[in-house]
Amino acid sequence: MPALVTLTTDFGEREPSVAEIKGVILCGCPDARVVDLGHQIPQGNVMEAAFFALRSVPRFPQGTVHLFNVAPGPDTIIASTLGQQVVCPDNGILTMLSHHHDIDAVHRVPGPEATPGSQQIFYGRDVFAPIVARLAGGAVPAELGEHRDDMALLDVARPERRSETQVLGEIIYINRFGNLVTNIHETDLANCEVQRVRAGDFTLGPLRNSYDEVPPKMPLSLFGSAGYLEIAYNGDRADQRLEYGPGVLVTVSVEPRVS
Amino acid sequence: MPALVTLTTDFGEREPSVAEIKGVILCGCPDARVVDLGHQIPQGNVMEAAFFALRSVPRFPQGTVHLFNVAPGPDTIIASTLGQQVVCPDNGILTMLSHHHDIDAVHRVPGPEATPGSQQIFYGRDVFAPIVARLAGGAVPAELGEHRDDMALLDVARPERRSETQVLGEIIYINRFGNLVTNIHETDLANCEVQRVRAGDFTLGPLRNSYDEVPPKMPLSLFGSAGYLEIAYNGDRADQRLEYGPGVLVTVSVEPRVS
Amino acid sequence: MPALVTLTTDFGEREPSVAEIKGVILCGCPDARVVDLGHQIPQGNVMEAAFFALRSVPRFPQGTVHLFNVAPGPDTIIASTLGQQVVCPDNGILTMLSHHHDIDAVHRVPGPEATPGSQQIFYGRDVFAPIVARLAGGAVPAELGEHRDDMALLDVARPERRSETQVLGEIIYINRFGNLVTNIHETDLANCEVQRVRAGDFTLGPLRNSYDEVPPKMPLSLFGSAGYLEIAYNGDRADQRLEYGPGVLVTVSVEPRVS
Repeated sequence: MPALVTLTTDFGEREPSVAEIKGVILCGCPDARVVDLGHQIPQGNVMEAAFFALRSVPRFPQGTVHLFNVAPGPDTIIASTLGQQVVCPDNGILTMLSHHHDIDAVHRVPGPEATPGSQQIFYGRDVFAPIVARLAGGAVPAELGEHRDDMALLDVARPERRSETQVLGEIIYINRFGNLVTNIHETDLANCEVQRVRAGDFTLGPLRNSYDEVPPKMPLSLFGSAGYLEIAYNGDRADQRLEYGPGVLVTVSVEPRVS
Repeated sequence: MPALVTLTTDFGEREPSVAEIKGVILCGCPDARVVDLGHQIPQGNVMEAAFFALRSVPRFPQGTVHLFNVAPGPDTIIASTLGQQVVCPDNGILTMLSHHHDIDAVHRVPGPEATPGSQQIFYGRDVFAPIVARLAGGAVPAELGEHRDDMALLDVARPERRSETQVLGEIIYINRFGNLVTNIHETDLANCEVQRVRAGDFTLGPLRNSYDEVPPKMPLSLFGSAGYLEIAYNGDRADQRLEYGPGVLVTVSVEPRVS
Repeated sequence: MPALVTLTTDFGEREPSVAEIKGVILCGCPDARVVDLGHQIPQGNVMEAAFFALRSVPRFPQGTVHLFNVAPGPDTIIASTLGQQVVCPDNGILTMLSHHHDIDAVHRVPGPEATPGSQQIFYGRDVFAPIVARLAGGAVPAELGEHRDDMALLDVARPERRSETQVLGEIIYINRFGNLVTNIHETDLANCEVQRVRAGDFTLGPLRNSYDEVPPKMPLSLFGSAGYLEIAYNGDRADQRLEYGPGVLVTVSVEPRVS
């Protein structure tokens, strides 16, 4: 079956940047099946791209080739994970994916050299798309770059079990409803009963299952549909009510669940 | 030929919700051809989704499997119509489609049971996408759900011929230009000459063929490109000028056309 | 391999217009591979569509069929260029493409006749999509329209070498960052050293390679990633700072590069 290629960028769709990338991929691998994942990542927001990668990549079948174009720089990597390949800048986009899934190999593809007085390099079109086309056509990463032992990571901690009764994480992302999404996944709290959730100076009680378990305009914490702990308001935006954002620490107090 | 699958949601494209749905469908049916119809339905707006379904589904070839994810709840249905299948919540999304086309069968797929303290169910990914993948792979609805005799319908009347000289309908939708779109289709006024269009307290004369038949900032009524009667302003937004919205009754006074 | 079809429109994605077009194409050519290029062209902005076509069409493989739906009118054309076909209104969308690439043939497809009192013609769905489906299915333009010797062009000059030391162009487009994008391409300044860039009353020195070569909030000119000369501000919007827009003349003073 022709290779599946996905595209995630911060280009929006008004300008032809995504169109150019698609054309280059389809010239290089004419039978590629190109699927848009999203082009509305806020410009240059690597943290949000990292969360996007964490949620989307594991859902795709083996053999898929993903292109992530957010804040590219001179270093480009091909990461092999879950039987798939991700082509992206070496800027931390795969940080959260690597917290939850094995990255089996990373290959670094040398960047093009900028020519003074020449046009800016459009990494998505000039660097990532040709690599994606070659991978979609059956090339292996070792043909395209050199193997490395590491990749850049964002300064976002893995959620950490501090003690029997504390799990520490942080806000990584504000979603479109204004919810404060943390890096603490349902599985990080397995076999625990949550007693309290504390973000900065703000404390909430046990987790709720749905918004309507609290009165209108009142706060709650719950697992979002991706399985990550979120702080939200019923009918209001948590980001505006609390003025917290990415990086704020979140402490969850738990008690072991008696099974 | 591999099955054609379409996606319509209210998720927007900033978050990876649509991406997750695509991944699940492509894991379940690796050769499905996934086509985006639109992800900008206003959140939870079933009426607008219903109008979207009415306009889009009949344009697609037999064998297409459509996924509509707007305001899902515990009940999921598979509706067979026009040789195609629509997977959606049982919340009225197919109301207007059913006014104009036969729904040949409805099958109900039981929802998942929520686990207390667990993540919210993401119906699009966890319920609709696996059903769509199975249908795209050749399963028949009877393998996936139980046959039912009805489905939920929105409280929107079919346009009604009240008398020789009156057709009654209502505003169902405000489009992106602020036009008030009604449920009265061109075919509901076949062989008639429209004398007046009345919406709430507001009365307009005969239909126009184009905006420039009235002076700037003046109102008119005309058939939109989908064939539905619209109330519009030349160079202005009817929704702001008239402050009418969905649910307002519209009466069209007609005279039989002498043929 | 099944034909590749691309879609570029000014419809946005909230309404089902693009969905209807896709359905009609897929009914007419069931194995077409439909790729979205962009649906966020500002409504009716033929100049921006022309720039979009210039940047995107040349990136696609031979045999691709492109649909551009911006400001359609009674005349529809099929333009053959670069081994591809473009179906679009005869309103100048291909002006800039024709400045840089040969248009090998233009065929005019007669428009439908509007029926008084009937719905507005939806050109994208009713005219362009059936043509695209036929071309994607293997029809040749001569089966669909009559050959013509010309097509409509926008009133935008080709960049012009006025003398040894002057290249004249104009602003054609404001991009989403507020940069003033000109029609002067890198290749128009080949073998030259740029001394000054003058837009209206405003003068800038030599070209820069990147934004950070000037202090914050200061202006610069550089080649954008498409290779066109842009006037920008480091960390600010040039369109707001300068209040210049499309049509403003730009003069580039150059000296031949000693090679």
